[in-house]
Amino acid sequence: MSLIVTGSIGIDTVMTPTARAENVLGGSCIYFAAAASFFTDVRVVGAVGEDFPSEHLAVFDRFGICVRGLEQRQGSQTFRWTGRYHENMNDRDTVEVQQNVLAEPLPPVPAEYADSRYVFLANTHPAAQIELRDQFPQASLVVADTMDLWIDTALADLKLLLTKIDGLVLNDSEARQLTGESNMVVASSRIVEMGPKFVVIKKGEHGCLLNHTDGIGVLHAFPAANVVDPTGAGDSFAGGMMGYLAETGNLTLAGIKRSLAYGTIVASFNIESFSLDRLSEISRRDIDQRLDEYADAVRFD
Amino acid sequence: MSLIVTGSIGIDTVMTPTARAENVLGGSCIYFAAAASFFTDVRVVGAVGEDFPSEHLAVFDRFGICVRGLEQRQGSQTFRWTGRYHENMNDRDTVEVQQNVLAEPLPPVPAEYADSRYVFLANTHPAAQIELRDQFPQASLVVADTMDLWIDTALADLKLLLTKIDGLVLNDSEARQLTGESNMVVASSRIVEMGPKFVVIKKGEHGCLLNHTDGIGVLHAFPAANVVDPTGAGDSFAGGMMGYLAETGNLTLAGIKRSLAYGTIVASFNIESFSLDRLSEISRRDIDQRLDEYADAVRFD
Repeated sequence: MSLIVTGSIGIDTVMTPTARAENVLGGSCIYFAAAASFFTDVRVVGAVGEDFPSEHLAVFDRFGICVRGLEQRQGSQTFRWTGRYHENMNDRDTVEVQQNVLAEPLPPVPAEYADSRYVFLANTHPAAQIELRDQFPQASLVVADTMDLWIDTALADLKLLLTKIDGLVLNDSEARQLTGESNMVVASSRIVEMGPKFVVIKKGEHGCLLNHTDGIGVLHAFPAANVVDPTGAGDSFAGGMMGYLAETGNLTLAGIKRSLAYGTIVASFNIESFSLDRLSEISRRDIDQRLDEYADAVRFD
Repeated sequence: MSLIVTGSIGIDTVMTPTARAENVLGGSCIYFAAAASFFTDVRVVGAVGEDFPSEHLAVFDRFGICVRGLEQRQGSQTFRWTGRYHENMNDRDTVEVQQNVLAEPLPPVPAEYADSRYVFLANTHPAAQIELRDQFPQASLVVADTMDLWIDTALADLKLLLTKIDGLVLNDSEARQLTGESNMVVASSRIVEMGPKFVVIKKGEHGCLLNHTDGIGVLHAFPAANVVDPTGAGDSFAGGMMGYLAETGNLTLAGIKRSLAYGTIVASFNIESFSLDRLSEISRRDIDQRLDEYADAVRFD
């Protein structure tokens, strides 16, 4: 089933303690879309500037991502982000951000995308997420991401959004901020009480917690020894998750748990390189093989 | 099979953001021994002072723990610890420590304990751990705990200890300190290269990682909504683990992974009350029932 995603597409410069990548393709949208493309057809809605290099555009093609909703806007510049990771590779500082085209209106959703059944509303102002959500009346599953900025500055809109979506994905510090609860099991229950059928709390290297109206799921992260660049880990996790759900249509608790395992595995490949380099090399077969290894690592029967 | 443990037995005062417990039974030895007692016979070697209350002694009986190696030393005072937990319940400050009898020599290991097959060397100076280890020539499994202090001040002894034991249990910050590696998969491999067949890295609310010469295991923590007092979580985890291993004798990778699941479950009960209160109320049946719930939460097939 067709999956649609909105979000940022950018040009990143990433510094880690041992390496550096300049002007590489980045942004939540492309990490999500590339990850999801292993499972289903993916449509994107987003804008880049006239400076966006053609080799970055070619990456969308390589993953078979439909770019009818991608606008290369003349007179605008692409979103740019520069970040530096700390020694532990879990913490990072944003060195520079240029919003550029991200500060302008999103391009319109192409009419032929209105039949999208699986919708991922990447992190942006919750009022804009609500407006987008309403453009997909046939959606079977709508999941949103959010961030600290909107919890701080647009809480009423965010709470309204939560009544209009099926699932929310956010990280542990955001869950704490949204609910005032530091226990993630309790925090996730509070969020489900706000409206969505389920919430996924991402805990980075520690895995994730699912709270669903039918039960709880917890997944340790894949034990990755080779972490080159964590950028996009959360987005590729969400992409793998939504891609699998769109592929199977299994929206039960069990189906969502399995989707989180797939998200975990795709993210574990993503962090093995800068940008989309590692995801460009692998196939669904590699993902399934690693899923088996992962299942072996977590089983205790 | 008989399991023996050494370690501290103390009188704790614990403050959490919402409650306080004064002069309750604590110390790594009793948390470990009580947890292990659900699975196997447990022997302890340790000392308390003349101030040790008889109702605390009665707790050993309640769990069926053999106290032939427990000395109540006249003229000495019991180890005392006062701690305060932060709002998030994961961080704590030690408010006061009185070493008291812990600063004196350990009582001798009773002759009838020399046949112990499962040995847990709780955290103390690694030279003392080596000396203890040598008193159990028939041991099938020797596992040690350690702490930052010994990594800082007795590294040579600790490295020697690692060549004489089967397994090491430590927390993530200690693993980082011991190896200089912040990636826990890499850190755990470095530790296995130092001698033991396996290492278990405890990550508190995030679960644990097992690195064994035969493979890797990762377990998310039990999703606990009700955390009253985390004191003893790591010790009851280790006790559940060693208790299960002593019960089954299954020292394969699969057996050790299952032991970690049992440790996870016993620890999840322990944190539901101050001191040993919750463990005093439950049975093996409660543990097995929660293990099933936990298995459901982590499975994704």
